[in-house]
Amino acid sequence: MHIYGDIQSGNCYKIKLLVEFLGLPYQWHHVDILNGATQTLEFLQKNPNGKIPLVEFENGQTLAESNAILNYLAQGTSFIPQDAFNYAEVLQWQFFEQYSHEPYIAVARYIAKYLGLPADRKQDYLDKQEGGHKALAVMEQQLLKTPFLTGADLTIADISLFAYTHVADEGGFDLSLYSAIQSWIERIKNTPNYVSMAD
Amino acid sequence: MHIYGDIQSGNCYKIKLLVEFLGLPYQWHHVDILNGATQTLEFLQKNPNGKIPLVEFENGQTLAESNAILNYLAQGTSFIPQDAFNYAEVLQWQFFEQYSHEPYIAVARYIAKYLGLPADRKQDYLDKQEGGHKALAVMEQQLLKTPFLTGADLTIADISLFAYTHVADEGGFDLSLYSAIQSWIERIKNTPNYVSMAD
Repeated sequence: MHIYGDIQSGNCYKIKLLVEFLGLPYQWHHVDILNGATQTLEFLQKNPNGKIPLVEFENGQTLAESNAILNYLAQGTSFIPQDAFNYAEVLQWQFFEQYSHEPYIAVARYIAKYLGLPADRKQDYLDKQEGGHKALAVMEQQLLKTPFLTGADLTIADISLFAYTHVADEGGFDLSLYSAIQSWIERIKNTPNYVSMAD
Repeated sequence: MHIYGDIQSGNCYKIKLLVEFLGLPYQWHHVDILNGATQTLEFLQKNPNGKIPLVEFENGQTLAESNAILNYLAQGTSFIPQDAFNYAEVLQWQFFEQYSHEPYIAVARYIAKYLGLPADRKQDYLDKQEGGHKALAVMEQQLLKTPFLTGADLTIADISLFAYTHVADEGGFDLSLYSAIQSWIERIKNTPNYVSMAD
């Protein structure tokens, strides 16, 4: 399995974290977004939407969208609940992540960390703070009730939300306001085979 | 099953379209977003993220996020492929919809149709056009190859993308540029038990 990504991107890191948890073999191919490597003809043939992460399997099949990849790779493992309603809650958190969390927290972090918070993006960066805190508050409310987002067990919902949440400070979000999120981050970091973004 | 939604919202209409295709019984409860009905204490207890659609089952369980709801309700039906990779492609399109399609096409339509294109949102509306056309081009490329987004059969991926695509003109997107999308829209409209947004 070939994974095309940038390990500093939370969406890409999600895939690395799952395959390390599962002990799956893979080859990592670094893709340089800022230099347009997702917009080349060759890459667009693999993913017409021009985004990473992208996974390519030995048979040539390709799959994009980080959360779709997690669902595919985690089938039949403990990272996907067997109960159908519980699995629907996993998907609920993953769609929440892509619509109500990532566009604020990941984008604020991108502007600050990748682009160096240039003056013409400063207002955009500030505008992301309210939505990011709203998403963190929704997570905090759940994590005050259950150790992981959908209950007692670590699932791909937690991997999806962990990716950008644990580096949210790089987007200007002060996590000391969210004690349940902080405990949850520690629980995930203490899971066997955990690998950090920096590794 | 109780569905809380606004039928003019594509995210809510997705659910109505699926339950009508499947012939499932349901009660529809209109929720007035513009008057703050998703931000009341009572509603926030059902969905802490304060959004519609929301489904409440007879046992009191609730589920949010339109695409998670579709996955749950369509289990075991022809709207979800049996092949695991093909199902992953369904999820890929649904995450594409929430990240690369809805934030442009649905938001442009919201500004124009719900808010009446006020002067202070005009630039925002114009800024959504490029991303919306990019998403439509990705869909067009696939629909030139297969009758539905993931192959020969209508799945919940098509329902997800149909919701805002078939009314994209209300957000200023000229669909006459996309012939494969137009044929796909007709195929869906001609499916037994199809119900329009206006019905």
